[in-house]
Amino acid sequence: MDSLLDRLRTEIGHSNVLTDPDVTGSYARDMMPLVPAGRPLAVALPLDTAGVQAVVRACAEHGVPVVPRGAGSGLTGAANAVDGCVVLSLAKLDRVLQVDPDDRIAVVQPGVITKHLRDRAAEHDLFYPPDPSSYDWCTIGGNLATNAGGLCCVKYGVTADSVLGLEVVLADGALLRTGRRTVKGVAGYDLTSLFVGSEGTLGVITEATLALRPRPPAPTTLVAAFASAQDAGHAVAEVVRAGLVPSLMEIMDAVSIEAAEAHLRTDLGAGDGTKALLLCQSDAGRCAGDEIAALERLCEKRNALFTHTTDDQAEGTMLLEARRVVLTALEARGVLLVDDVCVPRTKIAELILGCEEISADVGLTIAVVGHAGDGNMHPTIVFSGPSEEDRARQAFDSVLALGLSLGGTVTGEHGIGRLKRDWLAREIGEVGMAVHRSVKQALDPHGVLNPGAVLG
Amino acid sequence: MDSLLDRLRTEIGHSNVLTDPDVTGSYARDMMPLVPAGRPLAVALPLDTAGVQAVVRACAEHGVPVVPRGAGSGLTGAANAVDGCVVLSLAKLDRVLQVDPDDRIAVVQPGVITKHLRDRAAEHDLFYPPDPSSYDWCTIGGNLATNAGGLCCVKYGVTADSVLGLEVVLADGALLRTGRRTVKGVAGYDLTSLFVGSEGTLGVITEATLALRPRPPAPTTLVAAFASAQDAGHAVAEVVRAGLVPSLMEIMDAVSIEAAEAHLRTDLGAGDGTKALLLCQSDAGRCAGDEIAALERLCEKRNALFTHTTDDQAEGTMLLEARRVVLTALEARGVLLVDDVCVPRTKIAELILGCEEISADVGLTIAVVGHAGDGNMHPTIVFSGPSEEDRARQAFDSVLALGLSLGGTVTGEHGIGRLKRDWLAREIGEVGMAVHRSVKQALDPHGVLNPGAVLG
Repeated sequence: MDSLLDRLRTEIGHSNVLTDPDVTGSYARDMMPLVPAGRPLAVALPLDTAGVQAVVRACAEHGVPVVPRGAGSGLTGAANAVDGCVVLSLAKLDRVLQVDPDDRIAVVQPGVITKHLRDRAAEHDLFYPPDPSSYDWCTIGGNLATNAGGLCCVKYGVTADSVLGLEVVLADGALLRTGRRTVKGVAGYDLTSLFVGSEGTLGVITEATLALRPRPPAPTTLVAAFASAQDAGHAVAEVVRAGLVPSLMEIMDAVSIEAAEAHLRTDLGAGDGTKALLLCQSDAGRCAGDEIAALERLCEKRNALFTHTTDDQAEGTMLLEARRVVLTALEARGVLLVDDVCVPRTKIAELILGCEEISADVGLTIAVVGHAGDGNMHPTIVFSGPSEEDRARQAFDSVLALGLSLGGTVTGEHGIGRLKRDWLAREIGEVGMAVHRSVKQALDPHGVLNPGAVLG
Repeated sequence: MDSLLDRLRTEIGHSNVLTDPDVTGSYARDMMPLVPAGRPLAVALPLDTAGVQAVVRACAEHGVPVVPRGAGSGLTGAANAVDGCVVLSLAKLDRVLQVDPDDRIAVVQPGVITKHLRDRAAEHDLFYPPDPSSYDWCTIGGNLATNAGGLCCVKYGVTADSVLGLEVVLADGALLRTGRRTVKGVAGYDLTSLFVGSEGTLGVITEATLALRPRPPAPTTLVAAFASAQDAGHAVAEVVRAGLVPSLMEIMDAVSIEAAEAHLRTDLGAGDGTKALLLCQSDAGRCAGDEIAALERLCEKRNALFTHTTDDQAEGTMLLEARRVVLTALEARGVLLVDDVCVPRTKIAELILGCEEISADVGLTIAVVGHAGDGNMHPTIVFSGPSEEDRARQAFDSVLALGLSLGGTVTGEHGIGRLKRDWLAREIGEVGMAVHRSVKQALDPHGVLNPGAVLG
């Protein structure tokens, strides 16, 4: 393997090839504790697209697997090293190449931190919607690889909905351009969408052309407290049925509320007997007041104990902080398994109740938070360490089975990675798996790119 | 081939297999005059998914090509027969299987006429946005195969943006399910987007799960007249830059205006000296008035000769009729070649001016109408018959070259079909073509499905 390392050093520079195991170990896994990580041969940090091509080509010729890596904020082990691989970090391709306010597009490299792009867009009164909860440290490349979502999705869609075109290094090192810079375009197969969400198994994204939106007006915020998750879930269903599209609609169950309150050393003003909260925002400008009032009426119709609205931005941010802080608050109590199922929006109450039953069965805390507006829920299992890991895994799987039984999917926004491969097969069936394998074989016939992710 | 025909008759019923050349000829081509059509061996009209599987399987085993067909409203020859093929018409799979207002989804068969689905959705106060200009006779299956657009796209996106999941018969007759019924989902590769827009070359779509939207309020309409296409194009750029998203924004050039006025035996109230019209709508409900006023101000800033707004629905429909009737009006003057390029929205004025030059060069009328809000323009060449066909084709190609030179794509919403294969290669390059061929090979290794469409 020395010849490979020498070649990598020649191609992308000595200091951009790391081999010290103490260092490479920190590039070997993402944030999901259940998935083991292998020991990389090296970490390569190329500086540009040509460097990425050189790394992929060299590894392909040496038969060494390449594991592409963003910031490592993933929750499925998709970026976990396999033994003897080269971890290909895109961290140094970190430039915003263009923000064009006239055509409302941005051209970016994969190592750009999501928040940085959002800030750059905002300078032009533009908006890049995707906001996964790690948005202040995850990168666009990882967002593209997993088709990340966030709180914005209920109104503004997932990462794929903002992607117009890509530059992709293929498994043989060739450079592919997909898509376009125009709003619409149907020239050939939609390869852009094929690479987005493919978790680095089909190619390495080295540049993306992204659609920006007009920056919406500052939002109005509503918080509604309910005596049961069922009432809150029914309120969500009413909102969908009424044809309302808030710009944000999050749900917190009793465990999440209690954890957030303890962490923030405050009470959320929800009062006694609150077992679920809905947080909603409208960014509809002069119509936001109407929209929030309509949301409030539907919450009251579904027995809200309490509602509160504000167009004060600081107060709105503070209320939202309660939702954003839940995982941090839970981390003080143990190791977290953040699950990720998406169910029809009519089934949210059933999902939360089912999680309560699973929690009682396995004897572990499960906090349910989620993007209620699109049915994407994150039941989060808290366990103390190795002695409880089996039960935690059992709970994790039970949540996935519950999601499927409610007509949902085993992943709304985190992806399959190395964590849910068996569940992918269960969800999409034999023909679906065969087509996946055909596509993988077509684009990466020698299995160089991220082997073991998505497909077994 | 008699054994194949016997088998088809047995599998899907005698009366659903047509072989009379006078009859099959009417299933042999779409609406694009430039693309020749072959003579089909037969037309198969299966009644259900199992019938589609049977037809594909039988043809695959006999090595006979299958050309899937919707209503035949396409404009690229994608549904044109090849000699000796079986045309697989989806016309009899024409049921809306489900409209679920609680989860805002519809499940439909491919033979459903687009307008019929829009009407069914409206019964539940829901909205299926895609509205290609043939929406009252084209079918969902054809819309999916071409990823059709329409006037709605500026605010509501293209067909792909409404698709959650598909049922697809593969080249070997196997049945694949892609996607989901939930709003979000990232389980595996985005096969749904791969099949949408693949023009029947990768599989035959037999069912689609579609996202419906809340039905928007009745629109307010603005018409603005300009002394030049340049002024109108600049007004569009101002609208984009200002962050406005009207629900419709169409442009008509001088030739289109004159043709529509002659056809409707009216004048459009635009007055003398009008060389371009913008038609805009806002469906923002109580904010529509504000939005239309802002659009009007930007048109005036860009030297509109005249503006008129109305929230009278009959008047709004009448104004829009001028846009919708342009192709019909032009048909009275000759054979039409409807081109389809999408350019950055800042380049619309340049595109129209370029088309004027091409028109002068070849000595043929070119009318430019288009979806200005997303840059998708339809320069339409009018020619009298065979003696002018070469010049018409030359103009058609010059428009495509112009679109590419402006940073656009050779097809915004009509697709590649058999018409623009060379242009696809020119737009996406060698690596792009190689990836296309790999994907085609992976999913249809024996080239059974729609050979010659998209790829040569």
